[in-house]
Amino acid sequence: MKIKLNGKIIDIRAIWIENKQKGIVKMIDQRYLPFRIVFFESKNVDETAWAIKNMVTRGAPNIGVAGAYGIYQAVIEAINKEDFLKHIMKKAEILKATRPTAINLSNIIDEVLDFIYKELEDGVSKTELIERVYNKVESIAKREIEANHKIGEIGKKLIKDGDDVLTHCNAGALAAVDIGTALAPIRYAHYEGKKITVYVNETRPWLQGARLTAWELEMENIPYYLISDNASGLFMYKGIIDIVIVGADRIAMNGDVANKIGTYKLAVIAKENNIPFYVAAPLTTFDPKIPSGDKIPIEERSPEEILYVLGYDDETNSLRKVRISLNTSKVLNPVFDITPFKYIDGIITEAGILRSQADIKNAVKNFMRKRD
Amino acid sequence: MKIKLNGKIIDIRAIWIENKQKGIVKMIDQRYLPFRIVFFESKNVDETAWAIKNMVTRGAPNIGVAGAYGIYQAVIEAINKEDFLKHIMKKAEILKATRPTAINLSNIIDEVLDFIYKELEDGVSKTELIERVYNKVESIAKREIEANHKIGEIGKKLIKDGDDVLTHCNAGALAAVDIGTALAPIRYAHYEGKKITVYVNETRPWLQGARLTAWELEMENIPYYLISDNASGLFMYKGIIDIVIVGADRIAMNGDVANKIGTYKLAVIAKENNIPFYVAAPLTTFDPKIPSGDKIPIEERSPEEILYVLGYDDETNSLRKVRISLNTSKVLNPVFDITPFKYIDGIITEAGILRSQADIKNAVKNFMRKRD
Repeated sequence: MKIKLNGKIIDIRAIWIENKQKGIVKMIDQRYLPFRIVFFESKNVDETAWAIKNMVTRGAPNIGVAGAYGIYQAVIEAINKEDFLKHIMKKAEILKATRPTAINLSNIIDEVLDFIYKELEDGVSKTELIERVYNKVESIAKREIEANHKIGEIGKKLIKDGDDVLTHCNAGALAAVDIGTALAPIRYAHYEGKKITVYVNETRPWLQGARLTAWELEMENIPYYLISDNASGLFMYKGIIDIVIVGADRIAMNGDVANKIGTYKLAVIAKENNIPFYVAAPLTTFDPKIPSGDKIPIEERSPEEILYVLGYDDETNSLRKVRISLNTSKVLNPVFDITPFKYIDGIITEAGILRSQADIKNAVKNFMRKRD
Repeated sequence: MKIKLNGKIIDIRAIWIENKQKGIVKMIDQRYLPFRIVFFESKNVDETAWAIKNMVTRGAPNIGVAGAYGIYQAVIEAINKEDFLKHIMKKAEILKATRPTAINLSNIIDEVLDFIYKELEDGVSKTELIERVYNKVESIAKREIEANHKIGEIGKKLIKDGDDVLTHCNAGALAAVDIGTALAPIRYAHYEGKKITVYVNETRPWLQGARLTAWELEMENIPYYLISDNASGLFMYKGIIDIVIVGADRIAMNGDVANKIGTYKLAVIAKENNIPFYVAAPLTTFDPKIPSGDKIPIEERSPEEILYVLGYDDETNSLRKVRISLNTSKVLNPVFDITPFKYIDGIITEAGILRSQADIKNAVKNFMRKRD
């Protein structure tokens, strides 16, 4: 993604391996955006797990890659340990537990673990293994970015010149290493000269829309309006929104989608107003073990996210948390919801737009065959 | 409503006439809740208009009464002016323009103006008129509060023991002089010993749920959960919510309801999940001149309400505004939406629960006949 840093425009990913030998992973610290551009350096797998848990880096495909990088760090750490494989597997469990809903994390970690098992079975030396795991995790990152480009190419056809596009949360480059999932078709439509306006739900509680999506669009000069989550219903009802595109954190085999809390409402309202509703996600977002949405675990995050809002204090030029209710208020804070497939017109993936459960079955089967 | 002030529990209204001779109106300053209990004293009609426009006092039935009090202040001011009636009418226009969507304001102001015209036609002296207008506006305030009690009595039957009730915004005592509209059935169900839990949407952008409804429920020890607006969809989908009750800012004669932005989404999701959806409002909320919802003007408020969040800074013990997006972000901030009558199971009024357009027609006709 293109960002402005110290007066220059640079092209940057949300996360990358900064130092191959030492296993240092670097990422844009998303907690400070859009107020400051800060980088977070993770020196080991524990720090990477902490970064995922605490939203330093976030977004389902992005934390999938962060998980892969974490395993690479674990392999480096384990190299002189007696319990080599046990160490890696322990760290894998820690990584997986950081965010329970996004399946890309588990899917990609398992993919790297399977790779390690096979290499070890083939009798590869441990120093050679580090090199091979490095290549594997970098090829996964590359594959995810390429998937996003394909999602952009395929999805842009759904957006017409002049369209008003509604999106929720941040399913941009920050959420998907680069380019984005839901933002990929938007970027590609913009690049080919279509005049579009993006309606950005601010996305309480963490405000990914206000903080991250607005920032990404601003960086690319794509016109947008920031709105309250509550307002998107009115804009759909009034016929202003032409299409809704959101990301996904986990997709069941029947097409039910877990995504940022509030997605379900959007999908139902879109259907009610005959507005096409699309989910954009790479195939790593599908969970072959989950037949339907009601089996997807919903992450519950800290009440603090509801009770406090983090923002920028223009007076003191500092980030500050303000409390918006009584500190005695009891809070429930589920951060994902389930959108049944019947409300979804299609899932835009790198393998095409999936419009039926048969489409999903075939695409996931092909993807897993190719991967293995 | 009962509030705790300086260690004592006192019974207080959201707005009242503090000094009859001088026309001083006092109100709870809702901008500081729940962090501080501050009172705002309005010495004249211009200050009352300012207070309504700037959310010092708010809520459709409540600003209706504030408008009546403003006219009383205008009458006192006008007493020694040559253009007596012109002055009052000018101030009435200023009052009405403060908040365009809530019709109670215009309805009640017109009611007081009509009363003044008749009294003047009857040849009443100006000093006598002040007394009569005082009695009129106080009888309106009393009537509104009585309507709320009736809404509570009637509406409580809809709430069963053990129910989880979802509400939006603040349709409590703060919004309706006392008792509340949507909160009236909740209060009455609680008073008769029903164990209920209220799910309170925080209600962006102004956070009336987090700031005001949570506070009112806390003051009465009614159990509640504060949730993000986005989360209410999940709680309905999961079958947790038994009934939804909201207030209204204007109701068209076909039953379409203008209420706080986000209401429309709730109503559609409730219908989709077979959850009863009720609107609670006094008959002053109906607009006999508006046949359907699409004719109701939607107030657009400052982008500041989206870009900044006002809250309490626990570190410095002060109220503070923090910015949640780029200061260059373009914002749209409509603060009401329209819910078509087809999504509404009934409108709880002081004249009973209106379930059809014929019900609405009869109730409004009877109300206007009694009023005149």
